[in-house]
Amino acid sequence: MEQLTIIKVGGKIVEDEASLTRLIADFSALPGNKILVHGGGRSATKIAADLGVETKMVDGRRITDEAMLKVVTMVYAGLVNKNIVAKLQAQGINSIGLTGADADVIRSHKRPVGAVDYGFVGDVEKCNGAFLDNLLKHGIVPVMAPLTHDNKGNMLNTNADTIAAETAKAMAEFYEVTLVYCFEKKGVLKDENDDDSVIRHINRDIFKSLVDEGVVSGGMIPKLQNAIDAIDKGVSRVIITKADAIDGNQGTIIEK
Amino acid sequence: MEQLTIIKVGGKIVEDEASLTRLIADFSALPGNKILVHGGGRSATKIAADLGVETKMVDGRRITDEAMLKVVTMVYAGLVNKNIVAKLQAQGINSIGLTGADADVIRSHKRPVGAVDYGFVGDVEKCNGAFLDNLLKHGIVPVMAPLTHDNKGNMLNTNADTIAAETAKAMAEFYEVTLVYCFEKKGVLKDENDDDSVIRHINRDIFKSLVDEGVVSGGMIPKLQNAIDAIDKGVSRVIITKADAIDGNQGTIIEK
Repeated sequence: MEQLTIIKVGGKIVEDEASLTRLIADFSALPGNKILVHGGGRSATKIAADLGVETKMVDGRRITDEAMLKVVTMVYAGLVNKNIVAKLQAQGINSIGLTGADADVIRSHKRPVGAVDYGFVGDVEKCNGAFLDNLLKHGIVPVMAPLTHDNKGNMLNTNADTIAAETAKAMAEFYEVTLVYCFEKKGVLKDENDDDSVIRHINRDIFKSLVDEGVVSGGMIPKLQNAIDAIDKGVSRVIITKADAIDGNQGTIIEK
Repeated sequence: MEQLTIIKVGGKIVEDEASLTRLIADFSALPGNKILVHGGGRSATKIAADLGVETKMVDGRRITDEAMLKVVTMVYAGLVNKNIVAKLQAQGINSIGLTGADADVIRSHKRPVGAVDYGFVGDVEKCNGAFLDNLLKHGIVPVMAPLTHDNKGNMLNTNADTIAAETAKAMAEFYEVTLVYCFEKKGVLKDENDDDSVIRHINRDIFKSLVDEGVVSGGMIPKLQNAIDAIDKGVSRVIITKADAIDGNQGTIIEK
């Protein structure tokens, strides 16, 4: 089975000129099949503010009303996505920008209103892995924005981590998939005050021990749980690392 | 040779909810291979104003400075393009939104500064017809935004009429191409005060007579000249019609 690397980078990396330049160079140098998934929340927040649209967040998640949906559609699918695609083309990487609506790549449904009404946020139903496989076979690198569609005519805002995980799971049918989450730290840390205390390998049993011992806590628990879930669904490995180490030679590797 | 219809619609049509709904229905009903090329200038002007970016036009062409390039990239590739793609998906039309940067579909160079400095405006160098042909063969309908790239990392603003013409010429290698320009009038009029005085057929000789007789003038001359040029480059026919008549049963047909 051929290998495929899926890199997920947050808005912070792709919105800063210097870190974006570094990412474009590193991603371009990555051998083999690859897909880039990006965020863009900071730019969305800035453009929203410039347009007089208020940003509301609950537990780090954006509330997406109609005005905010327009903003994220403009910023993620337009500004951020096309800037990356144009820069990759300049490096000789033939890339294509995609939202979930494009070629029906990721279909979702509007999240039901629970304790929180997130608005136009999509929970993923399915990822069209066959289309992405076809692009890769033609030497074209998908660059995916954190937007999906409901097949009823609406774009929906979907977390970039989720886009990356769902894409990785769908592509596991065709490839041996490595999913790399870029993160502000070097990896999962044994001691949160020591940036060099990276835990190099985690599997399901180690994850349980780390939670029991209180070594990992807070937002890292769902992040690792999602990684373990991706492994269970056929993804070969998940790597949590810094954006300047997307080759996987550093960071935390989560495997079976 | 299989047939391909390329429909170009201006911003006015795709930015108004009622006319967009009509267009989506008519375009979805169009049989055979098809490509949609859209504008979005009105939305760009509105969002630019909301962001405090001044719109400057010279002879109906937008001056695209750095701030305006960001606006048109957001509006054309994000807001307008994805709204159309999501709505086509809801009609069962598997579409994909593209700028020229995506899969290197349309490469351009920044227009040299002449009497006017248009800024980040791209003059088309080449259209990647083989990629579009491959999409069509997979039953995927391209929806093209009026943006190109210079292969040096920059997006460039390119007139939607030009995108449509260059795409039509490139696709003439693979298909018998009909290029439909949607227009505010029913077609080229014999009497500009009589909306029903549509000239049904024009060829090179008729075009010359119409210019000599002063029947066509102003902006219609370059429009028809571009149509004749497309025919010379292999496009089978160009139709100038209203957006509510994209099936070609009305309007002006320019043929060899």
